[in-house]
Amino acid sequence: MEFWFSEYQSKNVKMSYRIRMQLHREKTKFQELAVFDSEDCGRMLILDDVVQLTMKDEFVYHEMMSHVPLFTHGNAKKVLVIGGGDGGTLREILKHPVEEAHLVEIDEGVIEAAKNYFPELSVAFKDERAKIFCEDGIAFIKDKKNFYDIIIIDSTDPIGPAVGLFAKEFYNNVYEALTEDGIFVAQTESPFFFSELLKRIYKDVSSIFKYTNVYIATIPTYPGALWTFTMGSKKINPLERTVDKIDFDTKYYTPEIHKAAFVLPAFVKKIISG
Amino acid sequence: MEFWFSEYQSKNVKMSYRIRMQLHREKTKFQELAVFDSEDCGRMLILDDVVQLTMKDEFVYHEMMSHVPLFTHGNAKKVLVIGGGDGGTLREILKHPVEEAHLVEIDEGVIEAAKNYFPELSVAFKDERAKIFCEDGIAFIKDKKNFYDIIIIDSTDPIGPAVGLFAKEFYNNVYEALTEDGIFVAQTESPFFFSELLKRIYKDVSSIFKYTNVYIATIPTYPGALWTFTMGSKKINPLERTVDKIDFDTKYYTPEIHKAAFVLPAFVKKIISG
Repeated sequence: MEFWFSEYQSKNVKMSYRIRMQLHREKTKFQELAVFDSEDCGRMLILDDVVQLTMKDEFVYHEMMSHVPLFTHGNAKKVLVIGGGDGGTLREILKHPVEEAHLVEIDEGVIEAAKNYFPELSVAFKDERAKIFCEDGIAFIKDKKNFYDIIIIDSTDPIGPAVGLFAKEFYNNVYEALTEDGIFVAQTESPFFFSELLKRIYKDVSSIFKYTNVYIATIPTYPGALWTFTMGSKKINPLERTVDKIDFDTKYYTPEIHKAAFVLPAFVKKIISG
Repeated sequence: MEFWFSEYQSKNVKMSYRIRMQLHREKTKFQELAVFDSEDCGRMLILDDVVQLTMKDEFVYHEMMSHVPLFTHGNAKKVLVIGGGDGGTLREILKHPVEEAHLVEIDEGVIEAAKNYFPELSVAFKDERAKIFCEDGIAFIKDKKNFYDIIIIDSTDPIGPAVGLFAKEFYNNVYEALTEDGIFVAQTESPFFFSELLKRIYKDVSSIFKYTNVYIATIPTYPGALWTFTMGSKKINPLERTVDKIDFDTKYYTPEIHKAAFVLPAFVKKIISG
């Protein structure tokens, strides 16, 4: 019997995974959620027909989303993740000596699915430094001032519930919520297929933060695979930071990768400078 | 009307492209060849159901395959490409002041398809420094001694006609065909899905060449997207080379990307050191 899940990466490109078993499926308050066990990529979390993570390559995204800003800052005590209800980014953040790590996920269904089907990610929820809020991140951040050292926007694609997380007004609120040497990072999609989004966000962030930098990583199961992260920093110049060594295990991130990730292919440089 | 081409990237993962039109299809002496015009990725060359290139991202592969060894060498006069019958790698090589660039492609059908359907790539064939041989690269190289400064293995996957291009005996012949400071590069697939191949080739090349290094680039339409290139060098240490500037246009390669490409994610370092 053939059992496949197909994701439309665009209207014209589809990625399909042979599925061993459907483990879960529900319509949450916000989106359609599915958990599949796939042959090649292990367990997969799907929201509204879009792959959010697979156990095969989640480490790339989660490590690069967290270790780059945390090591760039160097002394973060309070960290906020908006989105990221699977727990993967939180898991990586908690490898650092932070005092508090808050996670604001709008969809409780994602949190529950992570607890039930992704124990390797949701293990983070049990850490006593972690605090989980099932709320709208946009509203959550509005009354926070000078509070977080790092804010990470671990969102779905800029359609549906996540649209507001890609808006300039939101970045202004993020800026206000950060401490004076605060840093923020957002996942900003692939330059191969969503160059207009990257360009616009780079421009918006540049108009608010002193330093704006884009870094990259390769995530095979995301459309375009070459993935961008846009970082805004209030005081610390990320390109002047050198990471000497790390005292925990990683599968993608290294101090050398940290530096290399800020080196952009010519066409990506052109997108953000255009 | 829906018209899709699907590629099995493995037995369990399929990538599908919406096709505007089939431009060409034939059974050559060696393989089944097709040229499609796709909606999102432009023209595509397919051999035995495997995507060889798309106009959307061919620049990544061809630039990284050629500029990294050529700038590492710094003074290459004679360059050989084995495979690469589409002309893309040759096109990039000819941006350098080489005296002769030879291309040995076993399948004349690929050369003809490139001439007819990929003028942006096959433009290289018209350069007076270029010489095209429709022969078996493995036989071609056997009687060449101390002749080429650079040899590039621009092969299909290690199944079918290309198997011999991934064999240790062949790398020995490549070594002999190179001048005393010669450099060779081969495309060695994705570490996400073909780690055993990369591991084996790294070991084989290391047993023959003084310096063996792996570098990476992201090619979205190749399985796993994170692509490895394995370089063997007889005398020049690639990590000690710095490229100051380049005097032609590129879309991916830059002197900074050159350096960053040799920085490997932790899991890739582990594969080749294991």
